[in-house]
Amino acid sequence: MNDGAPATLRVAVLGCGVVGTEVVRRLLTNASELHARTGTRLELVGIGVRSTATPRDPVVPTELLTEDLRGLATSADIVIELMGGIEPARGLVTGALAAGASVITANKALLAQHGPELYEAADAARVDLFYEAAVAGAVPVVRGVRESLAGDKITRVLGIVNGTTNYILDEMTSGGLDFEKALAQAQELGYAEADPTADVEGLDAAAKAAILASLAFHSRTSLDDVPVQGITSISPEDIASAAQTGHVIKLLAIAEQGTYDGVGGLAVRVHPALVPVEHPLASVRGPFNAVFVEAEAAGTLMFYGAGAGGEATASAVLGDVVAAARHRVNGGKAPSESAHAALPPMPAQAVHTRYQMRLDVLDVPGVLAEIAAVVAAHGVSIETVRQGMRDPDEGAALVIVTHSASESALAATVADLDTLEVVERITSILRVEGT
Amino acid sequence: MNDGAPATLRVAVLGCGVVGTEVVRRLLTNASELHARTGTRLELVGIGVRSTATPRDPVVPTELLTEDLRGLATSADIVIELMGGIEPARGLVTGALAAGASVITANKALLAQHGPELYEAADAARVDLFYEAAVAGAVPVVRGVRESLAGDKITRVLGIVNGTTNYILDEMTSGGLDFEKALAQAQELGYAEADPTADVEGLDAAAKAAILASLAFHSRTSLDDVPVQGITSISPEDIASAAQTGHVIKLLAIAEQGTYDGVGGLAVRVHPALVPVEHPLASVRGPFNAVFVEAEAAGTLMFYGAGAGGEATASAVLGDVVAAARHRVNGGKAPSESAHAALPPMPAQAVHTRYQMRLDVLDVPGVLAEIAAVVAAHGVSIETVRQGMRDPDEGAALVIVTHSASESALAATVADLDTLEVVERITSILRVEGT
Ligand SMILES: NC(=O)c1ccc[n+]([C@@H]2O[C@H](COP(=O)([O-])OP(=O)(O)OC[C@H]3O[C@@H](n4cnc5c(N)ncnc54)[C@H](OP(=O)(O)O)[C@@H]3O)[C@@H](O)[C@H]2O)c1
Ligand SMILES: NC(=O)c1ccc[n+]([C@@H]2O[C@H](COP(=O)([O-])OP(=O)(O)OC[C@H]3O[C@@H](n4cnc5c(N)ncnc54)[C@H](OP(=O)(O)O)[C@@H]3O)[C@@H](O)[C@H]2O)c1
Repeated sequence: MNDGAPATLRVAVLGCGVVGTEVVRRLLTNASELHARTGTRLELVGIGVRSTATPRDPVVPTELLTEDLRGLATSADIVIELMGGIEPARGLVTGALAAGASVITANKALLAQHGPELYEAADAARVDLFYEAAVAGAVPVVRGVRESLAGDKITRVLGIVNGTTNYILDEMTSGGLDFEKALAQAQELGYAEADPTADVEGLDAAAKAAILASLAFHSRTSLDDVPVQGITSISPEDIASAAQTGHVIKLLAIAEQGTYDGVGGLAVRVHPALVPVEHPLASVRGPFNAVFVEAEAAGTLMFYGAGAGGEATASAVLGDVVAAARHRVNGGKAPSESAHAALPPMPAQAVHTRYQMRLDVLDVPGVLAEIAAVVAAHGVSIETVRQGMRDPDEGAALVIVTHSASESALAATVADLDTLEVVERITSILRVEGT
Repeated sequence: MNDGAPATLRVAVLGCGVVGTEVVRRLLTNASELHARTGTRLELVGIGVRSTATPRDPVVPTELLTEDLRGLATSADIVIELMGGIEPARGLVTGALAAGASVITANKALLAQHGPELYEAADAARVDLFYEAAVAGAVPVVRGVRESLAGDKITRVLGIVNGTTNYILDEMTSGGLDFEKALAQAQELGYAEADPTADVEGLDAAAKAAILASLAFHSRTSLDDVPVQGITSISPEDIASAAQTGHVIKLLAIAEQGTYDGVGGLAVRVHPALVPVEHPLASVRGPFNAVFVEAEAAGTLMFYGAGAGGEATASAVLGDVVAAARHRVNGGKAPSESAHAALPPMPAQAVHTRYQMRLDVLDVPGVLAEIAAVVAAHGVSIETVRQGMRDPDEGAALVIVTHSASESALAATVADLDTLEVVERITSILRVEGT
């Protein structure tokens, strides 16, 4: 920490809905980790709401609620705007920046319409304006494009940035549903709102496309520059026809360099498109988001994850809060925390995982019972057993998958199995991960 | 830019091999973009090499080559270490940090063995030590974990961080090759070195696992803490058996929280594992890398891209250079550059893409010729035509995929097709992207 670093930064949250509540929860319950990551204490000084009388999640401290959003926004070091909509969010953000606060926002509508004036206001005030959560929720594509690729040249961005439409198209593809049924199902599961227009007509994706294009191409792209086509006219026949040639249909937000009348230009658009099944974007399932970036030197990169949800979005917001705090405290450098709450290494034998064992065994009655008894004796439980591939003249092969067991229990099991007469050979032991 | 910001930062490159040459190329050819991104001029002041007499790529300015690596490392603002190996890299990096330089390195071996002492040296000197390229080449997982997830709690990291082994396993899976043949093929294509030990025995992945674990869990994990198993014993039978239950085999670098004797601990390991085909890691093909991160609030995130190669690795190095330069100039804040070289928006009609048109047509002779003539008249060229699905009593359906064409040419084509007697209906027009 620098010598002049503040011991405390005052943090204000504007809006206490789905995302705001989760941000408040993490600010309060993870205070000590946040201190370690930033080198300073983050003090939540107020939560701006329309009415302090509205019932809130118990994690929200009543005494911090205030209806004076402007007073709050102009008296904090870090202001987190989670109200949504254009006004009063725009005025509050501008006021906060002018008052010298770093601002974090998840407000795609505001940025897609008034981004350039806000970025300039932040420049003029020499403070940060961060908005990771505005593009693809928890997916860290904003930081990836702005920082990781800052020494490269991006040539194209293809994004699945709306989880509602991706869920609907995915259900139409894998479940054979038509658009109306898939939409109804998305609404039931909470993936689509009662009024799904902004999602299914592509407007939400268009706002994100404008933000991504501005960022990736250092341009001033606004929502009005983005031609949009939604997914309401996609039919089961379109999906089936795409499948016949090895494609799936995805709603894509696209920004790419091109030439027009010999002059370089930027094309930004949102529309459903056929994507080859072997393309990494094709395997983005359900409500997930992913952004595929093509750059001159890096080649192709993809960022994948949860595009929405209070908790996931709060994760992105907090990442921005930590970055802004680090900038205010020590010029962006993360404090050392190798000494802080470091987890001790676990001995290898303590690792728990699922195992697949393949055994060559004698083809005699009772072999399975004998093996199962040995496995059970070590407290390992069997999930499945199936016949493996082996020439029948030579005996049988078994493939056993265990439930999660410790490495040491497995090692003991294997040692015992190896002594059994009925076990000719243990042909392989592999772990099963990713479940 | 701050008032006291330096007009120039002195940049030194140590090592001029595969990666070093590409870094030099980008520093020189993209100087004006780098100036715009950082707010300062990055002046390449020297390139440290073993012998100035060795022939180099023409992009490397001979007058900047020097064999005095120590002198260079202690007289620059930003030192980029691209030599590899432990010594002399370790001494040079330590010397550079002590002299107040920000250091960028791609050296996984050095970090996996001596990371903690280097991070501490950087802390003591209050300078940055960045190493995005050391874990997964161009894939921005270091920044994702250190910054984007800084306000979250990571619970598990699963990475495909070695392209050589992923290529070999992929060829064994899709091409049915055995290990030896797949390795030979990887060597032919330049994906594996003549001595493939470090890759196929999992040692390269283990170094990366140690770095990732240190970063994700704020721990001090070194290479010695990572049990390793390579892929040399994986057989075609293992692959086939995995496929039967819907799994593929991947070499994974894993770091996860667990408990051992009731105490929380960190388990880090590298081994081949069965991964369910629907898991996002399962679709990582060929020499690509991907890191899958599970966090408390964010849920699951994945970072995907090229894990090696001079150009791709240089992209990650340059991203770090820009970040370090921004820190030195203005506390981490990116300068505004909305005015700099912004691309003008291209009109929608100028966009070029491939199109799929589905048409219901009369089932009469000559229909295809008539349609093809109309399409050709607008300068649009047809890639494929196939029979679509339609009740045969009703006539025929055609699915036409075009080569890349402009939106305006397509619109004119469609307008004309719509006037043809043989065309009953244009049932859908969709773009094809991601190719
Ligand atoms: N939810 C997600 O998954 C997600 C993901 C990415 C980005 N975002 C963005 O995050 C922002 C917040 O989304 P959300 O889902 O949390 O919305 P939300 O649940 O509707 O919450 C918005 C909150 O802001 C308050 N608010 C609105 N106008 C206000 C005003 N004039 N004065 C005081 N308070 C006001 C609302 O108060 P009342 O309760 O009194 O109306 C409500 O508590 C939006 O910009 C959204 O686009 C959300
Ligand atoms: N290549 C990749 O795809 C990739 C990807 C990620 C990370 N990395 C990492 O990037 C680093 C560089 O890799 P690379 O592929 O560029 O290696 P490389 O082609 O072997 O280049 C290394 C360079 O460093 C020079 N060098 C080594 N020891 C030296 C010494 N004592 N004094 C002066 N110069 C010395 C070598 O000089 P000579 O030519 O005279 O031997 C050579 O020019 C390594 O740490 C590697 O792990 C590489």
